[in-house]
Amino acid sequence: MISEVRQKATWAQEAAAAMNRMTTEQKNAALSAMADALIARQDELIAANEEDLRRGRENGTSPSLLDRLALNGDRIAGIAEGLRQIVELPDPVGELLERFERPNGMKVEKIRVPLGVIGMIYEARPNVTVDAAGLCLKTGNCVVLRGGSAALSSNRKIVEILKDALGSTALPGDALQLIEDSDRASVNEMLKLNGLLDVVIPRGGAALIRNVVENATVPVIETGAGICHVFVDESAQLEMAASIAFNAKVQRPSVCNSMETLLVHRKVAETSLAELLAPMLQANVEVRGCPDTQSLLDGVKTATDDDFATEYNDYIMNVRIVDSLDEALAHIRRYGTKHSECIVTETIAHAERFLQEVDAAAVYHNVSTRFTDGFEFGFGAEIGISTQKLHARGPMGLPALTSTKYRIYGNGQVRG
Amino acid sequence: MISEVRQKATWAQEAAAAMNRMTTEQKNAALSAMADALIARQDELIAANEEDLRRGRENGTSPSLLDRLALNGDRIAGIAEGLRQIVELPDPVGELLERFERPNGMKVEKIRVPLGVIGMIYEARPNVTVDAAGLCLKTGNCVVLRGGSAALSSNRKIVEILKDALGSTALPGDALQLIEDSDRASVNEMLKLNGLLDVVIPRGGAALIRNVVENATVPVIETGAGICHVFVDESAQLEMAASIAFNAKVQRPSVCNSMETLLVHRKVAETSLAELLAPMLQANVEVRGCPDTQSLLDGVKTATDDDFATEYNDYIMNVRIVDSLDEALAHIRRYGTKHSECIVTETIAHAERFLQEVDAAAVYHNVSTRFTDGFEFGFGAEIGISTQKLHARGPMGLPALTSTKYRIYGNGQVRG
Repeated sequence: MISEVRQKATWAQEAAAAMNRMTTEQKNAALSAMADALIARQDELIAANEEDLRRGRENGTSPSLLDRLALNGDRIAGIAEGLRQIVELPDPVGELLERFERPNGMKVEKIRVPLGVIGMIYEARPNVTVDAAGLCLKTGNCVVLRGGSAALSSNRKIVEILKDALGSTALPGDALQLIEDSDRASVNEMLKLNGLLDVVIPRGGAALIRNVVENATVPVIETGAGICHVFVDESAQLEMAASIAFNAKVQRPSVCNSMETLLVHRKVAETSLAELLAPMLQANVEVRGCPDTQSLLDGVKTATDDDFATEYNDYIMNVRIVDSLDEALAHIRRYGTKHSECIVTETIAHAERFLQEVDAAAVYHNVSTRFTDGFEFGFGAEIGISTQKLHARGPMGLPALTSTKYRIYGNGQVRG
Repeated sequence: MISEVRQKATWAQEAAAAMNRMTTEQKNAALSAMADALIARQDELIAANEEDLRRGRENGTSPSLLDRLALNGDRIAGIAEGLRQIVELPDPVGELLERFERPNGMKVEKIRVPLGVIGMIYEARPNVTVDAAGLCLKTGNCVVLRGGSAALSSNRKIVEILKDALGSTALPGDALQLIEDSDRASVNEMLKLNGLLDVVIPRGGAALIRNVVENATVPVIETGAGICHVFVDESAQLEMAASIAFNAKVQRPSVCNSMETLLVHRKVAETSLAELLAPMLQANVEVRGCPDTQSLLDGVKTATDDDFATEYNDYIMNVRIVDSLDEALAHIRRYGTKHSECIVTETIAHAERFLQEVDAAAVYHNVSTRFTDGFEFGFGAEIGISTQKLHARGPMGLPALTSTKYRIYGNGQVRG
């Protein structure tokens, strides 16, 4: 018997040609219908969500995770509004990227096309189910969703509502598939579906992403892991440095573009380390430091090599004092995950070297790392933040969900 | 002890920052020095190549493979000329792709950067060693080359000559690495070097590519497999159709953009199948056909399901008679490898549907599939032809060997 995963991926694959033909208007009408349906049927959705919450409470899920899982009228309105914002974004599909004629008279066009079928593998929050469906359908793709088991009842209801809504539109209902099998094996089966899935995008914690990268034979867009640094250079304006570091650490510690390690030039540290860290300590951030940090500041735990290599996603940070820009660059080269890196300096030559030499998706001069985000860059909703160098890097807006195709027109050209 | 593969990849990784700083002039000077050195030391190279040829003859290698392996003065001059052509190509690195300012005043730039370290895994021909080195270095990348064991002596000498040439230039010699361990395990070790290699590009036969796709945890750009079709529609000009089909099959059967299967509309087949296939039979192409083909033409073997799914790379082809454009599209959907597909027709609506609906890197109207090639598209030398949809699709010119990076400039912006 065919497995659920293979069956649903096959249905999605079979719907890909029809999706590829949809006009922008047809896709936008479908997204609007999806948004309307989520609002109209919010009571059903809240009831389904309550099942997930009850199961979570029974299993001892932490209050903060339960909060991320919970849906209510306001949150559903926000999710529906997210779909309407995707309607407003320009449709990249069909865009003519290049057009040229060759000496033999053949005309070549390069145009944007959908990727085909996208596999999304993600964790708890049910809003990702709607976001991913909206972004993939807007770009003419089919999508096979595999969310976390903690949100299964919510996700099942969401996909039921969205598929029902598609029924009144031009879009094929099979373009949207949810894998309900919550066994880990269903993820691993998805990862090997070459020929049915064109790409797999994991979105979640480090373990989820590592499993996908290590086991997928389908092409992967790696997202998310962020060990981000702020380097306070000798010439930094102290107030600006303190403000950027505080924002990068504390404004939302749980996300990938938050800071894990503060690198401080020795000259700044000697005069102002306590001032730089005071707001952190007030916000109950646990500070772990190198020996030099410990000698300048009381009550700082030792930051181990493992600490420098950890994405805390929490109110914990490392501090390391460095002698030079070069030492800061070497530290970032060793521990960074190529996500977002910042230098605070008034020395233009140092800023230029940092922005040139640091190998990361986003490199900042005098700006908090927290801005690595599709909305903040003005791209609108994002399917994730790519930390790999192939295909897409940084916040992935709609064009990251497309491929290209060459169309060649001639009148009998053959190769000599 | 560290393995050869890991050691050399580490050296390449350590050279990446220096490569990233090289100017276009410095890179071009290095490529020119490499070309000069190949010419100046051609006698050494021919002697090394003779070792490979002798070993090949002893092992019973076929004359055609030995011919592909052989180097002589003319071929070396051609290879050196290839490097000089890469010098002439525009350098994509540093190109400003986007620039915008956000309402909070931060300025965002998206620029092209090198990928970093590229792993190339390929088979026999030693010219690939030079091409890959030239393309990767021109784009500011380091490269770890792993060629076939049949060309090991040639490849070792080529890399010795190229690295010696780099010694007189600004480029770090470690940017260029050759894996000499000819055990298959060295390939599989490369495929898992996440953190040292940014991408692996396989170039070779189906088995090599399948091994890379199935075992790599490093991102892969899949190249090469081509089961390409020519569909002769009801309204096709017969002479043009015969000429295109013949060119697509016979001009160079061993390459990926050659035709494996000819699809013929029933109306054309009934009147003109013999005429369409006459040039093929004269060129000693073995024709395998569907039952309808067999009933129209004597002496045609049966084309099995496996035949339709085989890339012959040889003087063999399949013929299938179809009732409609839809049947042709369905056949291509089932057996095509998303490489290059052609329709010969005078019916514009059919051409438009074919070019829209066929999911392939290059789709042709009244042009031979043989044009899917970097030189033919005017891109210059290519590192391969991508048959996947991520990152690059079709002939990969220099921009396919780059990634991007966001540089953000501000004056203390923090996220609210």
